[in-house]
Amino acid sequence: MMEESYPIRTDLALESQERLKNDRGTVRGVRFFEEPGEDGVVVSTVVIETENAAKAMGRPRGTYVTIEAPEMIEEDEGYHRNISVRLAEILRKMLPGRTEQDLNKGLEVSALVVGLGNREVTPDALGPRVVDNLFITRHIMNEFGKYAFVDEDVSRVSGIVPGVMAQTGMECVEILRGVVKETKPDFVITVDALAARNVRRLGRTIQLTDTGITPGSGIGNHRNALNTESVGVPVISLGVPTVVDAATIVADAMSALITELSLSDLRQLDERERQELARELLSPQLNGLFVTPKNIDDSIKQLSFLISEGLNIALLGNKERDNGI
Amino acid sequence: MMEESYPIRTDLALESQERLKNDRGTVRGVRFFEEPGEDGVVVSTVVIETENAAKAMGRPRGTYVTIEAPEMIEEDEGYHRNISVRLAEILRKMLPGRTEQDLNKGLEVSALVVGLGNREVTPDALGPRVVDNLFITRHIMNEFGKYAFVDEDVSRVSGIVPGVMAQTGMECVEILRGVVKETKPDFVITVDALAARNVRRLGRTIQLTDTGITPGSGIGNHRNALNTESVGVPVISLGVPTVVDAATIVADAMSALITELSLSDLRQLDERERQELARELLSPQLNGLFVTPKNIDDSIKQLSFLISEGLNIALLGNKERDNGI
Amino acid sequence: MMEESYPIRTDLALESQERLKNDRGTVRGVRFFEEPGEDGVVVSTVVIETENAAKAMGRPRGTYVTIEAPEMIEEDEGYHRNISVRLAEILRKMLPGRTEQDLNKGLEVSALVVGLGNREVTPDALGPRVVDNLFITRHIMNEFGKYAFVDEDVSRVSGIVPGVMAQTGMECVEILRGVVKETKPDFVITVDALAARNVRRLGRTIQLTDTGITPGSGIGNHRNALNTESVGVPVISLGVPTVVDAATIVADAMSALITELSLSDLRQLDERERQELARELLSPQLNGLFVTPKNIDDSIKQLSFLISEGLNIALLGNKERDNGI
Amino acid sequence: MMEESYPIRTDLALESQERLKNDRGTVRGVRFFEEPGEDGVVVSTVVIETENAAKAMGRPRGTYVTIEAPEMIEEDEGYHRNISVRLAEILRKMLPGRTEQDLNKGLEVSALVVGLGNREVTPDALGPRVVDNLFITRHIMNEFGKYAFVDEDVSRVSGIVPGVMAQTGMECVEILRGVVKETKPDFVITVDALAARNVRRLGRTIQLTDTGITPGSGIGNHRNALNTESVGVPVISLGVPTVVDAATIVADAMSALITELSLSDLRQLDERERQELARELLSPQLNGLFVTPKNIDDSIKQLSFLISEGLNIALLGNKERDNGI
Repeated sequence: MMEESYPIRTDLALESQERLKNDRGTVRGVRFFEEPGEDGVVVSTVVIETENAAKAMGRPRGTYVTIEAPEMIEEDEGYHRNISVRLAEILRKMLPGRTEQDLNKGLEVSALVVGLGNREVTPDALGPRVVDNLFITRHIMNEFGKYAFVDEDVSRVSGIVPGVMAQTGMECVEILRGVVKETKPDFVITVDALAARNVRRLGRTIQLTDTGITPGSGIGNHRNALNTESVGVPVISLGVPTVVDAATIVADAMSALITELSLSDLRQLDERERQELARELLSPQLNGLFVTPKNIDDSIKQLSFLISEGLNIALLGNKERDNGI
Repeated sequence: MMEESYPIRTDLALESQERLKNDRGTVRGVRFFEEPGEDGVVVSTVVIETENAAKAMGRPRGTYVTIEAPEMIEEDEGYHRNISVRLAEILRKMLPGRTEQDLNKGLEVSALVVGLGNREVTPDALGPRVVDNLFITRHIMNEFGKYAFVDEDVSRVSGIVPGVMAQTGMECVEILRGVVKETKPDFVITVDALAARNVRRLGRTIQLTDTGITPGSGIGNHRNALNTESVGVPVISLGVPTVVDAATIVADAMSALITELSLSDLRQLDERERQELARELLSPQLNGLFVTPKNIDDSIKQLSFLISEGLNIALLGNKERDNGI
Repeated sequence: MMEESYPIRTDLALESQERLKNDRGTVRGVRFFEEPGEDGVVVSTVVIETENAAKAMGRPRGTYVTIEAPEMIEEDEGYHRNISVRLAEILRKMLPGRTEQDLNKGLEVSALVVGLGNREVTPDALGPRVVDNLFITRHIMNEFGKYAFVDEDVSRVSGIVPGVMAQTGMECVEILRGVVKETKPDFVITVDALAARNVRRLGRTIQLTDTGITPGSGIGNHRNALNTESVGVPVISLGVPTVVDAATIVADAMSALITELSLSDLRQLDERERQELARELLSPQLNGLFVTPKNIDDSIKQLSFLISEGLNIALLGNKERDNGI
Repeated sequence: MMEESYPIRTDLALESQERLKNDRGTVRGVRFFEEPGEDGVVVSTVVIETENAAKAMGRPRGTYVTIEAPEMIEEDEGYHRNISVRLAEILRKMLPGRTEQDLNKGLEVSALVVGLGNREVTPDALGPRVVDNLFITRHIMNEFGKYAFVDEDVSRVSGIVPGVMAQTGMECVEILRGVVKETKPDFVITVDALAARNVRRLGRTIQLTDTGITPGSGIGNHRNALNTESVGVPVISLGVPTVVDAATIVADAMSALITELSLSDLRQLDERERQELARELLSPQLNGLFVTPKNIDDSIKQLSFLISEGLNIALLGNKERDNGI
């Protein structure tokens, strides 16, 4: 796997694209386009179209949409509702098959939202906290039907926080596959904290992808991929980088140092060789360490409201949510 | 169902037995025996043997063991290890089939421990907190085998905190059935906060039963029973009363008042009739309210350590737990 | 003390007024008026004007304003912003001296908000959770001045969660008096969970008073009053009933039973005598027990947002809060 | 200040001593000795004796004792009681004046334990969690006297978790000074998460010092020192490194790279110059970032039990703690 032969770790397709692009800003087999939006919100899309491109990018074929908004983690009374609305639009477009049309027509769909990560480790608590703030409707729909709601166009939303392997002894995919078989949602949305390469992206980027999440994502250790094949229904993955691997940050700094020094005997190395040199010098003690901001508690709080609101809008519509019960 | 025609709610078989027993202290179809142990720990066993007895008692046929120890919730540096050891012995005897012998021989067994209840409501957080403190081994055994452990007689222990229906939109039984199918434990142990009738029992009683848990237990609303039939493998249920239903406490008080007053026009009512009179006068606003002690936070902390230690001893033996990893 | 000679406990002046009022709806020495507002929000004011009235009401002379809104704890995307705005208006009017005018003119005032109660016991966690969600500015003002803020009319807001005596070994008043001496706020606002008499009021009522809080309020045990005399600056107390004392609910039920039965030998008892009879029959085991709703976690979440937003509006104005730092 | 002219940050005097020592392992004005103990627990003492040494070491004159034990964060049923006992012995020796003798004679002393740091950021939650697990006695002693306890040699222990400046708007020293003036403890013990230089020390080292804590310690931003002068009574500081500054880890790695490459044009730089070169190349984005292990939740759990147990033993003796209330 790419992961192993190369020290730089990122869960963001955008960062892989940036690293691999040539002078023209392209990678063979990868389509890339950017829509600079209003409010300083930039939306970019990376589509990995071929198996070769997937290998080079170190992640599966599929579509990766990135929402970048620097102010996302700044305190805001309205929790940046404009970004939530944008997120909801993008998410709806990524939902499988005719789901978007069904939602627009007010036809019922059924979604299971999964909060991945470890609630006890602040930068890894994003997924669990998003599920805490979701508007859960499945049990009410099952008991009272849609007429329990003021607005009758309501989907069947369920949510779960499976915990991490050290807490449960089980792979997330084992838990999810079981729950999906029993409760039969139309699709699954996973929410997770991710690792970025660049510290500037921490808390400022949301990635959505229809490929599921790849092994080794986030802080935790989800060894087996969560995707359509393994889970049994389509999986949309939503993530926000909240950490950088310690080894990545150090290797990047050392690589920059080598470049900067323009050392005669190192000058001829290309980026990969420089990274490998850096890696050789890396302390194995950096394994299992991550880098995160001191105010990560505030970021997680803001982001979990922003994302849960985005999911509520995408799945339930932008309406009063008063269940009258 | 009994639940509905009768206002008094208890999850303890011992309390049902006390209520129904005749002058000789017996209920037809119910065996009852008590072993006053050392340390002031009293162990009583209620065996419901017939369908008629099950109806009268309002709970399924099976064995209910109750450990009563007044000091359970008092602060103790060793978290009352003697009670944990006793709990472990009783639990081992209740495990299905040849499990106890297998554990004694050091043969591996595989257990899934389920922390029922709502982590966000203090008296209902017992189950989740017990799972937090469990020694989880399944993932280590799966990856490294038993040789990862100093003592090689180690079982495969997994744990899950499914959440309550208002948080997940799913019944606990749906989640558990799915997880059990995927991960195939030999048996399930559920841990839950229960409702007692008598406030003196709060935090001082542990009930174990091989019948699974009955609908409506605890604070939450687990509408469908968790038992061998519904989950797919044997279910041992462990619970501690942490609340009394508000309607129960009021009805009991009113019934006592009627008795106390020896009112000429009420004197001839039997207990059930007095309860029914009390119930008629009960405010419907008491529904959905529970009674719990002010220091419930300390009790839950103590009890969760005591019980998780009991489970650790029962499943992993009373040995150093150093996984060398 | 009134508390001891009478079993019925309430922290709401409104409930004391209801209990004591005569046929004309008045209590001597107590002024009462009600403004039924829009949105179904009812605001009532109880002014205790004489020492005799204070004795009869069991609480100090001063003004008690009650905001009642049944929908307060229902889930709402905007967290019932209309109620927050109303709360802010009422709070501003109650602030000492010229504070309201100063705030209106954009003059700086300095407030310390105190989150009373025990974070670990769900119905008692209201105060701590409100402080978690406050917009704290004192340290930024101290370091950068008001120019750090987009809107320069910003007050100096600080906050503290002192913990309860079982956690700290100290009285709240000891901690507060010390902190007030060192940091010199113009006034203190305490936020606490209260005990009501009537279960219908749980989570639906906000009480504000300029008298400080009386001993024994809420779930905890604040033995010494927090008021201008003991703390050193004016104290405004804000509280929401989240519990009913178990003894209160039982005594009330028993009293109702006696009334209902129209028992010939009890008929001539007045309310106080009926309560006393009920009290004699009350189990001492009810001491230290409280009654609270099963969904108290959701109520506390909603209420803490609603109140912190009210405080933010009252102290910082109804403006964008973007600190540009 | 040293802090500013030099990129390497450590809160451990031991690491400063290691960095500055000459060929003979000494620093002028600094005494150093090590007692390799049983159980692989190593105790070293650094005494900074002169103002010059204090400047060179970047920390105040005084005694710094370090307990190193690699297994401290490994899961252990007894929470490494041997280390707690050792910690208690060392702490007692460091207590001011005749406190140790008084404790040995069973004379009452009165201590305030302060849990510094941010409960919401896992690696910074050590101090708050230690206070959660302390045996608090002051309020019981105040109300019932020492006869409330089985063993009558009990000290008056109080505890507080003041929160961090972003949560309170106040400096810790403001809060502490006020609380100390009101409650008059004989001394204060602060517990805090620290920053180490070397990742190997994370979670494996306890530092105790009689100098108070120096500005900028830990993850938070305690701008003003907590020491005898600022707080008003002697301050003993206890800390465990749980993070490394991101800038430190990167600067150290870059410095090692320069050394390793033995670059002809850099070879002649001494360590400080190499560090400065590294620092120049450091991204300013590393400010405000820290490095911590993925399993920091388990470490904090283990460490908080170990340390609170050490404090309980030191202050209350190694006896049954049953308060009979």
